[in-house]
Amino acid sequence: MKIGVVGLGYWGPNLVRNFSAAEKVESVVACDVDQRRLQSVGKKFPTAVLEPDIKRLFSDDSIEAVAIATPVSTHFHLAKEAMENGKHVLLEKPLAATTAEAEYLVNLAIGKGLVLMVDHTFIYTGAVRKMRQLIDDGEIGRVSYFDSVRVNLGLFQHDVNVVWDLATHDISIMHYLVHERPVSVAAFGSAHYNGHEDVAYVVVNFNDGLMAHFHVNWLAPVKVRQILIGGTKKMIMYDDVEPSEKVKVYDKGVTAATREGIYDTLIQYRTGDMYAPHLDGAEALSLLCSNFVGSIARETSPETDGNAGLEVVRILEAADKSLKNHGALVTLD
Amino acid sequence: MKIGVVGLGYWGPNLVRNFSAAEKVESVVACDVDQRRLQSVGKKFPTAVLEPDIKRLFSDDSIEAVAIATPVSTHFHLAKEAMENGKHVLLEKPLAATTAEAEYLVNLAIGKGLVLMVDHTFIYTGAVRKMRQLIDDGEIGRVSYFDSVRVNLGLFQHDVNVVWDLATHDISIMHYLVHERPVSVAAFGSAHYNGHEDVAYVVVNFNDGLMAHFHVNWLAPVKVRQILIGGTKKMIMYDDVEPSEKVKVYDKGVTAATREGIYDTLIQYRTGDMYAPHLDGAEALSLLCSNFVGSIARETSPETDGNAGLEVVRILEAADKSLKNHGALVTLD
Amino acid sequence: MKIGVVGLGYWGPNLVRNFSAAEKVESVVACDVDQRRLQSVGKKFPTAVLEPDIKRLFSDDSIEAVAIATPVSTHFHLAKEAMENGKHVLLEKPLAATTAEAEYLVNLAIGKGLVLMVDHTFIYTGAVRKMRQLIDDGEIGRVSYFDSVRVNLGLFQHDVNVVWDLATHDISIMHYLVHERPVSVAAFGSAHYNGHEDVAYVVVNFNDGLMAHFHVNWLAPVKVRQILIGGTKKMIMYDDVEPSEKVKVYDKGVTAATREGIYDTLIQYRTGDMYAPHLDGAEALSLLCSNFVGSIARETSPETDGNAGLEVVRILEAADKSLKNHGALVTLD
Amino acid sequence: MKIGVVGLGYWGPNLVRNFSAAEKVESVVACDVDQRRLQSVGKKFPTAVLEPDIKRLFSDDSIEAVAIATPVSTHFHLAKEAMENGKHVLLEKPLAATTAEAEYLVNLAIGKGLVLMVDHTFIYTGAVRKMRQLIDDGEIGRVSYFDSVRVNLGLFQHDVNVVWDLATHDISIMHYLVHERPVSVAAFGSAHYNGHEDVAYVVVNFNDGLMAHFHVNWLAPVKVRQILIGGTKKMIMYDDVEPSEKVKVYDKGVTAATREGIYDTLIQYRTGDMYAPHLDGAEALSLLCSNFVGSIARETSPETDGNAGLEVVRILEAADKSLKNHGALVTLD
Repeated sequence: MKIGVVGLGYWGPNLVRNFSAAEKVESVVACDVDQRRLQSVGKKFPTAVLEPDIKRLFSDDSIEAVAIATPVSTHFHLAKEAMENGKHVLLEKPLAATTAEAEYLVNLAIGKGLVLMVDHTFIYTGAVRKMRQLIDDGEIGRVSYFDSVRVNLGLFQHDVNVVWDLATHDISIMHYLVHERPVSVAAFGSAHYNGHEDVAYVVVNFNDGLMAHFHVNWLAPVKVRQILIGGTKKMIMYDDVEPSEKVKVYDKGVTAATREGIYDTLIQYRTGDMYAPHLDGAEALSLLCSNFVGSIARETSPETDGNAGLEVVRILEAADKSLKNHGALVTLD
Repeated sequence: MKIGVVGLGYWGPNLVRNFSAAEKVESVVACDVDQRRLQSVGKKFPTAVLEPDIKRLFSDDSIEAVAIATPVSTHFHLAKEAMENGKHVLLEKPLAATTAEAEYLVNLAIGKGLVLMVDHTFIYTGAVRKMRQLIDDGEIGRVSYFDSVRVNLGLFQHDVNVVWDLATHDISIMHYLVHERPVSVAAFGSAHYNGHEDVAYVVVNFNDGLMAHFHVNWLAPVKVRQILIGGTKKMIMYDDVEPSEKVKVYDKGVTAATREGIYDTLIQYRTGDMYAPHLDGAEALSLLCSNFVGSIARETSPETDGNAGLEVVRILEAADKSLKNHGALVTLD
Repeated sequence: MKIGVVGLGYWGPNLVRNFSAAEKVESVVACDVDQRRLQSVGKKFPTAVLEPDIKRLFSDDSIEAVAIATPVSTHFHLAKEAMENGKHVLLEKPLAATTAEAEYLVNLAIGKGLVLMVDHTFIYTGAVRKMRQLIDDGEIGRVSYFDSVRVNLGLFQHDVNVVWDLATHDISIMHYLVHERPVSVAAFGSAHYNGHEDVAYVVVNFNDGLMAHFHVNWLAPVKVRQILIGGTKKMIMYDDVEPSEKVKVYDKGVTAATREGIYDTLIQYRTGDMYAPHLDGAEALSLLCSNFVGSIARETSPETDGNAGLEVVRILEAADKSLKNHGALVTLD
Repeated sequence: MKIGVVGLGYWGPNLVRNFSAAEKVESVVACDVDQRRLQSVGKKFPTAVLEPDIKRLFSDDSIEAVAIATPVSTHFHLAKEAMENGKHVLLEKPLAATTAEAEYLVNLAIGKGLVLMVDHTFIYTGAVRKMRQLIDDGEIGRVSYFDSVRVNLGLFQHDVNVVWDLATHDISIMHYLVHERPVSVAAFGSAHYNGHEDVAYVVVNFNDGLMAHFHVNWLAPVKVRQILIGGTKKMIMYDDVEPSEKVKVYDKGVTAATREGIYDTLIQYRTGDMYAPHLDGAEALSLLCSNFVGSIARETSPETDGNAGLEVVRILEAADKSLKNHGALVTLD
């Protein structure tokens, strides 16, 4: 299989590296209009084919699939053109700039029988996969809340706000772990420097009392990457900054007993052992690339397919709408 | 001076202990209808006078001041009666159950020329006082955001939700540190066990892009007590769980330069030293009690006077209103 | 039972408090020549009997047992006299100032049929008891090393060095956890201020490659209280400064395979889950006091009996001897 | 300048990468007898010249300098031959397997007028350089102790023990920071698996009460890389595992006052601010390579010259001697 990688900025070279090392990938064609970036990739990955002209890449029938790592505003047109040229597509997160664009791409992929995948990298980490397993095995019980913090002295983006930049990661993790459908979104933020919100809070409501919350911040003095997941049986703390023991499972909880004739609910607390499961240490992006290649070969759907990308964009778009309306609740669907 | 302490549950004995040790306090009269509590306090503090009858306490003219540590629903009536009997009043936080009650108490105190104080204990810690000094000295610059997290495995309260229980602390700290007036409040929460919200998020908006946010949770597997304060010059991380170095000041920040003829703002990052100032280790409640006694003696206003208590109740009430309306924005005043 | 507490300095009042609350203890007689200390204890514990004269205490036949919390140099004479007056004795750690004194006391207790106990408080903490259980259950495998660090900006002692002050705790923990007998001791230290070593390292050798090491320091800028225990199956990290999860058990290890005809040993690494067992949170000193009272009542030996105290003193004395000889190895027995 | 890199195992490729990027270096010749290693380096660094024959490399007059990253047992012969062929030499740490070898190499370099450098990488980190500056500026006062811990679940080395593998780093840091000369060494260790000590403690004594101590361990469940430095004015905690704020400077200390006619020394404690200076984040190995190239060009001595390497080997050799003699003190010189 021959794979093109379009866009050689911050993330593209990582895709070139991983696809170059992937099984079944015969060659990687690296493409960017910027000659310096092209040369730099050529120097680091001497086996990559360098291609400055995207038109030529798209019309090259020997290239079966493309990975697109360009600014989000260009995702739609590039992915559309690639699929119209019969190519499978892996898109950098977020999938597209609007729900409408994302839906169009999902439908186009179905119509053409092509694989459409989104690069939600965290889904392929040992930590997130272990949490999914714990939840699916019923060890946590029903999820009662999902709380995420992703803050640091960030790199300001010039085209999107901090929600599109950082919360995308955590919303994709929530979508992977929580199997219920969100029903509404509210978001609050503040833009101190370049007109895009650099501090923001996003609330995602589900039915039955489940609530998810995301704190993202480009202006924090410390780097925090934490997700707390409350469950009716156990609770999880996922701390991605920890060098080891990133996932901790607490046998802690509350049980409420209603006693006849007694007004107050009796709350009882339970505290047992904590454990940190051993996590698979394989590079997430490598698994993701294999997943893409394997999905094409087996004609199956990848784990983070177009629909996963669409659901995340749906929430991001709703968050933006709420941000513009002072936190007014935006209903999904 | 003779001081009465009303309510000998969780907090009252701490007041008995501190007033017993305070200068200028001649004797402490401890009062509760529950005989067991009364006996327990009597055993621990043999010099305290035990009084089961609150009527007698209120009508005892030798008692100049009372500290009230009863459930919040009783604050108004007890404080009102105490002041009508000419006594200075220290109320456990929050000051009252409604803004209307709080306003009435504030006005009553003014009318009677009495000291009305609220027990916002954190204001008297070395950490919070140091942060106030840093902000007032201009070292932080203009505050751009205030983010607080106060979560752990509960104690569930039976009469109030997690916002009234935990966020009161952080809102009182914000009120002490940030000198601007909040303009609106939104809150989101979920009640999993006894009908009161046990997980909640509160947003407090100010003018000029300043936003405060409070995360409170009785259902968290880990104990977190952190406040991040962003400033235009420096940033503060206050971690109350740390045994030492609770306050860290980061010489970090962002500067934005608009260059003529260039579309994007140029964002530059600045990273300098971090330092943790030495903090006064005196017990906060001891300082608070001295402040109360001193205010009465000097006929001055205490640091956490009735107005401070009123402003916090105003935000708590607005948060409750927003919680009941799915996060709808509630304007203050 | 009536119990005397001799010495009301730093630790004595804790003994008064715990014996006052202990079952089967009818009254506590608190004794010190210093009138201020006596008054202070009288104020805090109104039920305690105050006794300035130790002679009278020792000759009072209604007092069945005494706890001695005086400087170590006085332990021997006070304990001897108490036992000669037929009283059971609990001694503050370390048991005595020399091995000879400790042996004499142990033999005297046997001869008189009295309980002799040493206050190795840590042995009664949930953390240390859990570690003992893990080791005794075989979960750790054979202990291969014991490494302890106890450092902070300490309170300099005027009568003993940092080994006698701090390492006593860790040596008593080692003695409780490791069932093999130590064979030799070496120690290195440095005295910067008052002639007593304020920084010291103690090595305790066992047979079969087991080695224990103790780092104690009164001059450290941070507070560290950590014990690492290596085992052939699992490893333990005990961090007493952590507010929760003080004991962590790591399913990590090394296996060595010798392959025929191949020179090098093949070392394989194993990394599994980590877990932090839930620990009993009861106050250690309360358990210790109950253990003392119970041992007297049941005529059994307490967990930290005179022999435990003797073995710790033996190591401390050897460490001192090595310190004076520039770290020369001192054989035990 | 043309530089040869000999030995392409774990560390050699890092040298190839850094010399390839260094100013004034025209080309890098990578040399190993193992064809697979050679090919692997060729693939990653397409500009490097591949050379399987070390004889040809040594006799190539166009190669001015060589970096040697082979097992320590081979250092002496390879470095000797390189210098006899007129080449400047950079040796992987430790400089040589014995003090005699190290002295020979130092003298050979002087005799030939060649640069001899040892790869003590940590000396070129921002953290260690900042500590040196703090000490040299007098901010710390006189150094009173140096305590280092470097432990984790190791990679076992097959040719050297844990002291030669890990303590080399910390001894080189001590040698760089502490300007006094060590006078004696004692070491204790235990070998559990392959005959080489995998847990060890090394004591280095200086005159005037300064003592250094090194704990190294391949069998620890957690990764610790900490150095505590006590000073008469301030204290330093260097934690290399921390992602930021690796160096913390504590304004803490003790002052001792002798009062006339009073037996005990009066010890007073001082606790002020802590600060974490901003550290230069440049890659240490890149600075080291520039230092080597610059020293050759300017005909000056590099910061970690042959003498620095010799002093470290002297201590390692003494530690080995003490290990073999049950911790007997070994005098240096």
